[in-house]
Amino acid sequence: MSDHSLVVSPAALKAFIVSVFDRWGTPPMIADLTADLMVRTDLRGVDSHGVGMLPTYHRWFRRGWIVPTAEPKIVRDETTTAVVDGQQAFGHYTSTLAMELAIAKARVHGVGFVTCRNSNHYGAAANYSMMALAQDMVGISLTNSGPAVVPTYGRQAMLGTNPISVAAPAGGECPFVLDMATSTVAIGKLSVALRWGKPIPPGWALDREGLPTTDPTVAYQTRHLTPLGATRELGGHKGYGLAVMVDILAGVLAGATFVDARRRDPDPVRADIGHFFGAIDIARFRDLAAFKADMDDLLRALKQSPKAEGQDRIYVAGEPEWESEQRRRRDGIPLAPLLVGQLREVSAETGAPFTLGV
Amino acid sequence: MSDHSLVVSPAALKAFIVSVFDRWGTPPMIADLTADLMVRTDLRGVDSHGVGMLPTYHRWFRRGWIVPTAEPKIVRDETTTAVVDGQQAFGHYTSTLAMELAIAKARVHGVGFVTCRNSNHYGAAANYSMMALAQDMVGISLTNSGPAVVPTYGRQAMLGTNPISVAAPAGGECPFVLDMATSTVAIGKLSVALRWGKPIPPGWALDREGLPTTDPTVAYQTRHLTPLGATRELGGHKGYGLAVMVDILAGVLAGATFVDARRRDPDPVRADIGHFFGAIDIARFRDLAAFKADMDDLLRALKQSPKAEGQDRIYVAGEPEWESEQRRRRDGIPLAPLLVGQLREVSAETGAPFTLGV
Repeated sequence: MSDHSLVVSPAALKAFIVSVFDRWGTPPMIADLTADLMVRTDLRGVDSHGVGMLPTYHRWFRRGWIVPTAEPKIVRDETTTAVVDGQQAFGHYTSTLAMELAIAKARVHGVGFVTCRNSNHYGAAANYSMMALAQDMVGISLTNSGPAVVPTYGRQAMLGTNPISVAAPAGGECPFVLDMATSTVAIGKLSVALRWGKPIPPGWALDREGLPTTDPTVAYQTRHLTPLGATRELGGHKGYGLAVMVDILAGVLAGATFVDARRRDPDPVRADIGHFFGAIDIARFRDLAAFKADMDDLLRALKQSPKAEGQDRIYVAGEPEWESEQRRRRDGIPLAPLLVGQLREVSAETGAPFTLGV
Repeated sequence: MSDHSLVVSPAALKAFIVSVFDRWGTPPMIADLTADLMVRTDLRGVDSHGVGMLPTYHRWFRRGWIVPTAEPKIVRDETTTAVVDGQQAFGHYTSTLAMELAIAKARVHGVGFVTCRNSNHYGAAANYSMMALAQDMVGISLTNSGPAVVPTYGRQAMLGTNPISVAAPAGGECPFVLDMATSTVAIGKLSVALRWGKPIPPGWALDREGLPTTDPTVAYQTRHLTPLGATRELGGHKGYGLAVMVDILAGVLAGATFVDARRRDPDPVRADIGHFFGAIDIARFRDLAAFKADMDDLLRALKQSPKAEGQDRIYVAGEPEWESEQRRRRDGIPLAPLLVGQLREVSAETGAPFTLGV
């Protein structure tokens, strides 16, 4: 595993992912949609949730969790709400259909909310909240995930990193796109640190005894992340509360698995991940142009406010990712040595040619 | 101001608050509703948002921001959404009406969302999300507030502590009631520390130079709070992002003031605080009994999970407040010396007799 890092074009990366999915027997439309979202995630600089997940997806496919040919079913459909059973299809595919449905409902009725159960890892939460932007809506995207976060005062991982994404359009400014794990950091940040062999800051994760660790290997093995806030004194109970909130909306309300079900079944036959999507039509509340002008005002005011000692820039959520996308579309997407090695293994195991470099 | 602390009964506290509101010319129904919510907040142990706010409300009333006789107006009413202009009425009154409207819409259409503008401080966010519980709905309550939180990499307070509250019913267990400022701590925590003369932990607040301070007086004066996560390394940009999200939904979407407007008008003629309320009917997604059984499973699994070294209990959001309510209904509500002095001043200035003790 002495691979070097690589820099690849978005097109080459997508082609490789599609060829892997093809070997799994994935219908072309589903392979294309999923690969597109994965590459877009890498373009946006969210290295933990793009092609970096392909080795995991390959494991899940072989375990029978991901069923590439499955078609999600709308099992309940009412005025403003719907429930989708993902049928173990790719999480990206199920989530795209569900968010489209939420948007369609919001177009007619003002708001739309759709839950998904029996789904898989859906990549970056923002992929779906951002679908609302072009429709001049506010988009909401939540998902639960495998145990990684330790409750305040606990020492066992009971909750996923359960991300929250909310997107809102602006006028001339970049749209607001929040996409955050409710843990201090996402598990992906640990795998990125592991991939590059870097120590992690204290406060991110706990060892088996529940004590802070800076070793990315230990942290990645225990998967004992702290909730956002890190300690009780700094508000860790708030991150814990947000993580539970996500498990309630994306897990319990969706009828998907949630922390307790996972605890009771250590060797499940499917991931049964749950999602929660929402779309809110801005024009039902305010004149759209006035909303966008105020959004520009808000975002500019934040960015133009005085900087802390030693800082020359204040960001708003979504801006670093937007800039990464411009940069990486031009310069390519860097892949760390460990990931290159993992992708070579996926290539060898599936028979999809490794076309990403020497 | 050499007052002692006092312990008062809920009934006595409510009677005092009502008598103050009466001197302002508040109609009895509005005075009763507002005082009830304030006392309930103190019962729940949220000392920063109950009667502790009365001196502030008195200042706002005298400044003309709170108009005790005002009636909120529904200025837009569609299928699943509505917009309420608070007309500068008490925030508690406007918010109760708005959440009732959201619940009524959710009863008929599955979900309901209502924004409010031109409102005032609404007390504890959970007062309104909890209204959904008895209706077997999930309740959402957000509000913006005056500048107190410094953006990541900034040194000027640009955002309110902008709380998020989400409530969901359980079966046998206490309902889940999250109510959290998106700052590391709420401004009220600083005033409580100031009231009792206690130093604050490092990471809660910044001084004028943007450096951490442990002095509650300095922190209360600058009102330079950190967003949840405290530092960039521990995820402070996430708390910052959540605070902006709340300002977008409760401020911009509601057509209320938001950070930039406040910046431009240092001496406003009204508070123009904005709120965002939501209700989601659980039965549209799942069988209600199954949802509640799973909620009990989820909450019990968390509470029964292994404890950290030196800890003997894991809480879930809403539980400490529920227990405080049982305790304080029995034992009374403690008032700190500084607050007692402030309430005496309100009594003297309004002519409402000070009936809370010697």
